[in-house]
Amino acid sequence: MNSLWDRYQQYFLRDTASGISLDISRMRFDDDFLPRMEPLAQRAFAAMTELENGGIANPDEGRMVGHYWLRAPRLAPTADLTAEIEDCNGAIREFAAKVHASGRYTEVLLIGIGGSALGPQFLHDALGTADDRMALHFLDNTDPQGMDRVLCALAPRLEHTLVVVVSKSGGTAETRNGMLEAEAAYEKAGLNFGKHAVAVTGAGSALDTYAEKNGWLVRFPMWDWVGGRTSVMSAVGLVPLWLQGLDMQALLDGAAAMDAWTRTTETLKNPAMLLALMWHCAGNGRGEKDMVVLPYKDRLVLFSKYLQQLVMESLGKELDLDGKKVNQGIAVYGNKGSTDQHAYVQQLRDGVHNFFLTFIEVRKGRGGVSIEVEPGAVTADFLQGFLRGTRTALYEGGRDSITVSLPEVTPSSVGALIALYERAVGFYGSLVNVNAYHQPGVEAGKKAAAGVLKLLARVKGALSAEPQTAAQLGSALGEDAESVWHALNHLAANDPRVNTTPGTTPGADAFALT
Amino acid sequence: MNSLWDRYQQYFLRDTASGISLDISRMRFDDDFLPRMEPLAQRAFAAMTELENGGIANPDEGRMVGHYWLRAPRLAPTADLTAEIEDCNGAIREFAAKVHASGRYTEVLLIGIGGSALGPQFLHDALGTADDRMALHFLDNTDPQGMDRVLCALAPRLEHTLVVVVSKSGGTAETRNGMLEAEAAYEKAGLNFGKHAVAVTGAGSALDTYAEKNGWLVRFPMWDWVGGRTSVMSAVGLVPLWLQGLDMQALLDGAAAMDAWTRTTETLKNPAMLLALMWHCAGNGRGEKDMVVLPYKDRLVLFSKYLQQLVMESLGKELDLDGKKVNQGIAVYGNKGSTDQHAYVQQLRDGVHNFFLTFIEVRKGRGGVSIEVEPGAVTADFLQGFLRGTRTALYEGGRDSITVSLPEVTPSSVGALIALYERAVGFYGSLVNVNAYHQPGVEAGKKAAAGVLKLLARVKGALSAEPQTAAQLGSALGEDAESVWHALNHLAANDPRVNTTPGTTPGADAFALT
Repeated sequence: MNSLWDRYQQYFLRDTASGISLDISRMRFDDDFLPRMEPLAQRAFAAMTELENGGIANPDEGRMVGHYWLRAPRLAPTADLTAEIEDCNGAIREFAAKVHASGRYTEVLLIGIGGSALGPQFLHDALGTADDRMALHFLDNTDPQGMDRVLCALAPRLEHTLVVVVSKSGGTAETRNGMLEAEAAYEKAGLNFGKHAVAVTGAGSALDTYAEKNGWLVRFPMWDWVGGRTSVMSAVGLVPLWLQGLDMQALLDGAAAMDAWTRTTETLKNPAMLLALMWHCAGNGRGEKDMVVLPYKDRLVLFSKYLQQLVMESLGKELDLDGKKVNQGIAVYGNKGSTDQHAYVQQLRDGVHNFFLTFIEVRKGRGGVSIEVEPGAVTADFLQGFLRGTRTALYEGGRDSITVSLPEVTPSSVGALIALYERAVGFYGSLVNVNAYHQPGVEAGKKAAAGVLKLLARVKGALSAEPQTAAQLGSALGEDAESVWHALNHLAANDPRVNTTPGTTPGADAFALT
Repeated sequence: MNSLWDRYQQYFLRDTASGISLDISRMRFDDDFLPRMEPLAQRAFAAMTELENGGIANPDEGRMVGHYWLRAPRLAPTADLTAEIEDCNGAIREFAAKVHASGRYTEVLLIGIGGSALGPQFLHDALGTADDRMALHFLDNTDPQGMDRVLCALAPRLEHTLVVVVSKSGGTAETRNGMLEAEAAYEKAGLNFGKHAVAVTGAGSALDTYAEKNGWLVRFPMWDWVGGRTSVMSAVGLVPLWLQGLDMQALLDGAAAMDAWTRTTETLKNPAMLLALMWHCAGNGRGEKDMVVLPYKDRLVLFSKYLQQLVMESLGKELDLDGKKVNQGIAVYGNKGSTDQHAYVQQLRDGVHNFFLTFIEVRKGRGGVSIEVEPGAVTADFLQGFLRGTRTALYEGGRDSITVSLPEVTPSSVGALIALYERAVGFYGSLVNVNAYHQPGVEAGKKAAAGVLKLLARVKGALSAEPQTAAQLGSALGEDAESVWHALNHLAANDPRVNTTPGTTPGADAFALT
């Protein structure tokens, strides 16, 4: 065991000010792994410096990548950008203070999806308290039943609900649909939607124009140099979370402090680089192992989902920066410990060895006094026992793990945690030579959906009182029978005028308009 | 495209009564795959019949496996068992009706973990409406801060809160801790905990004894022939969900109907067997591909987590039934569509090809009338467009998928969905020859944690006013320095009497009691 303790200390990193630490001793990398990777690590450091200095770090979209400036505006590459960020942050705080002072609003409804919702959802859950100034709600999909649920619950308080619509392009269909449904709910209640609405969007976007035309309360910018999945420290997160009453300045400061720490180009002193290198080691730089993330803290249960988006959308790429087909990425999943020990940890311990684990430890159990649940032991001791016991048991079973420790869950420590992983993802992108800042596949999915929507309309138009099969309608429309059949089933389930006469096979089903 | 439409129809399965269907046409299995697997499939059918007839299907624990009897008590192997199930179900309904009629309670707090919480959480979220009779809350971990959050929110209504403590053995530490913390909250409020408490536990368990001794309202049984991850249709789910006001009889009936469908031993007509075979095909029977589960419906967002537990805890096994080391399992993750298309679907489409996908489609958009968000199009059309578009785009990119379609989210269809996957997991266990009904690794994790708890107490006892390092304390206690150091850090973070003087390395940190 002595050699493990030596290894623990050899690679252990901690920051005295924040109390955050990183343990990579339970990753089985060889002694020559880090020296061998050093040239790649240095290349990644250099790329990161260029990025922070305002280089076009997202070449496919011809964009700078500036989320690090959001928490240290003076590091932005131009004085104009610095001023823009500072002005925006100031305007948001002022707006939130005005809303709080007015006493008119008790609820915030955020309408957004992906990077425009998940960050606020994570922080809302991780940091919310009984003393929150306003309650947050979310529409983050185009599921009408899901919207009904949220809007019905808010119905008695719509007058006191501020709606924040978040969409960089203003053209994201799910968000636009959510906005239109919310608007309809306000109209139905005899309320002026614009007088309750706030836009967070790119200047000149469709949403920006719509908000201006309809006299919305205020518009805050989204810049093209901030990607959705790293936007929680821009207006995307700051608007709803300042409204909620979180101390977002502490969050920004915590992130800035982590940024300062992870700027060191000494690999062994840089926790983000060590993380990236461990991911590389675990999956041979090809994502051969899934990353299971287990925060032992209820408040961090959404962090795994947040990381799932950050890591997979950033690193899951077909082509590398030289245009070579690489199909990169790392799959991420997890919920929370010790709860997950009563679920899939059975497989982690005994089953298919296709993962490495990240434990997130929070040292402090709770604020107040604890009862003893056994002589001399409190509930927090059990949480610690499960974390340490599981780490040991998994390691002894040949399963590697990383442990990140936080002193407690505060705006500052959560800001630091986000910044740590943002930097690690950027480094890993460099290590495997992919653009970690675009998402071409998302665009492709939207296009495919648009084709289906067009087809739905055409199929609807082609229905008649005469029962027809999918093949008949398809051949009339020049469309394949299966797609037409799916469209017909969707219409039949949602439009009472569309009738189905089931056949023995899908091809024999007949559809008519009554 | 014609050949795809033919393939679609060739393997398409649907049940007219429930409206549930299965599409495996986008899984690229060869023509000879199903014939080749047929002997194994038949072996699995035979094993399932034995199981349903009361064989010892869980040989390691010497237990029957009876979750199918819960929804069809008359199929239980003895008249006694039939009566026991029917009596229990009747008693639960009666109890819930009495609670509702009393008007005394508005809230239910369920305390449980893993199989004793996740099923109720999933159904609570999937099926809850504004008309629910009672609101459900959960303690599902031993995180004191997490408990504080729930108990503080309930504090003003504790008098009107019914507590349901769920633990088969009664010895699960997280659940016991949650119960003791809840009990303390009631005492602090001057309320008699027992007069608000219900136990769901094995007869004669520690919890059973405790509940009896302390005059709890009522105790409902957990049988050793129902595993935690398949217990949602036993008292574990029935007690909280009948209290919530869900129509659990419809859920049981939906499950029973699916059980009837999936009892057919004609492989091509059995949707559960086809699912199991597709999983086998995707991962070569060794879990080489992750199962990504994407329900396109907000209400089903927890289904992926539910499946994660069901699949991974059942199939993630070190040894097969012959004692051979196989390290089986299938990793499962996912949240919901189309939301996830704005997160990790980027990687699914472009990145590392280590998964197959399951789409869960819900045909009906919503109950009422929809506004048009574009001429002729409603939000549900978009949801359909994203699902179909993504399925097509992924398939064209070489990524296979299964699609399960439900007419809508009702107690009946969700019961059927759970039953479909329970059966598929059982079949898959047979296909790869593992015991899908035990969880030896969970026990091991508990043991490892117990060791840590003991160490915590010993380290606490060994601290003195004299600062000592982890190595010094460790050698005095005969424990390894690293474990002692972790214990010391935990104590320092949670006990104000423990002081740390940080050194340059963990080994140089000194700890003292003040």
